[in-house]
Amino acid sequence: MNPHLTGVGSTMWVVADGYIPPGSSGPEPEMTSHDSICMLNPGDAGARVEVYVYFTDRDPVGPYVLSIAPRRAFHQRINDLEDPEPIPVGTDYCLVAVSDVPIVVQHTRLDSRQEANALMSTIAFPAA
Amino acid sequence: MNPHLTGVGSTMWVVADGYIPPGSSGPEPEMTSHDSICMLNPGDAGARVEVYVYFTDRDPVGPYVLSIAPRRAFHQRINDLEDPEPIPVGTDYCLVAVSDVPIVVQHTRLDSRQEANALMSTIAFPAA
Amino acid sequence: MNPHLTGVGSTMWVVADGYIPPGSSGPEPEMTSHDSICMLNPGDAGARVEVYVYFTDRDPVGPYVLSIAPRRAFHQRINDLEDPEPIPVGTDYCLVAVSDVPIVVQHTRLDSRQEANALMSTIAFPAA
Amino acid sequence: MNPHLTGVGSTMWVVADGYIPPGSSGPEPEMTSHDSICMLNPGDAGARVEVYVYFTDRDPVGPYVLSIAPRRAFHQRINDLEDPEPIPVGTDYCLVAVSDVPIVVQHTRLDSRQEANALMSTIAFPAA
Repeated sequence: MNPHLTGVGSTMWVVADGYIPPGSSGPEPEMTSHDSICMLNPGDAGARVEVYVYFTDRDPVGPYVLSIAPRRAFHQRINDLEDPEPIPVGTDYCLVAVSDVPIVVQHTRLDSRQEANALMSTIAFPAA
Repeated sequence: MNPHLTGVGSTMWVVADGYIPPGSSGPEPEMTSHDSICMLNPGDAGARVEVYVYFTDRDPVGPYVLSIAPRRAFHQRINDLEDPEPIPVGTDYCLVAVSDVPIVVQHTRLDSRQEANALMSTIAFPAA
Repeated sequence: MNPHLTGVGSTMWVVADGYIPPGSSGPEPEMTSHDSICMLNPGDAGARVEVYVYFTDRDPVGPYVLSIAPRRAFHQRINDLEDPEPIPVGTDYCLVAVSDVPIVVQHTRLDSRQEANALMSTIAFPAA
Repeated sequence: MNPHLTGVGSTMWVVADGYIPPGSSGPEPEMTSHDSICMLNPGDAGARVEVYVYFTDRDPVGPYVLSIAPRRAFHQRINDLEDPEPIPVGTDYCLVAVSDVPIVVQHTRLDSRQEANALMSTIAFPAA
């Protein structure tokens, strides 16, 4: 039923505005303030994705290693990354996602610090 | 009056952050929470668009087949897709739109789960 | 003081999700719901921009002709276009902007139908 | 721990919809209405970034000179630029960021003029 999409996408993606809003309004976990990288692995082989997180005042942290099965969506809240270390809230960061096979990455933030949530989203920058 | 724009756009577009917010505030249908793919067929031939939807934990579904007349806008709420099956709300997904002629695709979400609606939008990723 | 940026940008840009929300909350004109195309002409020559608007069920309308002086910003609310005809509110549309010199176009919507405004923005699709 | 990413990105980026909302709701500085350019310098050499700001009715202003250390994030609120002159609030502008080494730029606005904040974001346009 699905087209053969091996090779669709890019193997390196950059998000430049990373920030997990500190504080939330509304029920958890759906309305918890978060940053996400939403990924599609459209191909016929599994993807091994390494995420590196860059900060303003210290060396980058990573890799955070994620596995995406063939022909699967994978939406990762940055809040939930734990290994090698959690990403602090209320802190400016950037990230680079490097995959061994082409994928597509979209960056989305939900900010519910005030009473009605705000959203922002952009296709990440395909760097390779 | 209109320019000849056959060939403008791309024949494959990817949206990586698909999610229909479950729940809405305000009058239907305009304020109903939804994901949309907004498409332009700028050319002189009709477009046949096949949409494939990818999930986290099961095989992709599709094609959803859409027809766009020449020189027409076509904004499709994902909520309204029915054949081969509706897209569940509150569920992470990605989608690929494949067209037989070049088109342009923009992805937009309206989230009215809380009292004032939130919006996000991005030009989708042109993959071919 | 400014760099020589003639040639920076693209001569054709596409916005696929056009929609002027019908209704607003808050003071006019700043909080009036609107769609905008925000343009930069970074070069040393004036730009003549022709905007064509596409609808779901009728032929495209245009050109709306805009002039941007060299090295100037130009943010155009779609609500304010009048010649050859106003764009109706609450109506799906797409648009193509064709310029005789390279420019850059970003699409932004402010939706204040509900009590706190929502925003969305994306760099338009550079088609040429 | 981090990959060698010298050369990733672009040396010229354009933001076409610049606007600092005049007025804010909520605690400062985190909820103060602002425009930001969020930058990653992924490479092994420091970046010298020159920002030029374009207006509707006067000559561009700049350069605003920013330095980004190797492998560092740098999120700059436009509100905080002071030299050669502050950017006025409530005023349409565009900006061009020129870097001596490749970087990645994302544009984000937080608008808290009304009671719940709105957000918008897009990867800027890579022009070189």
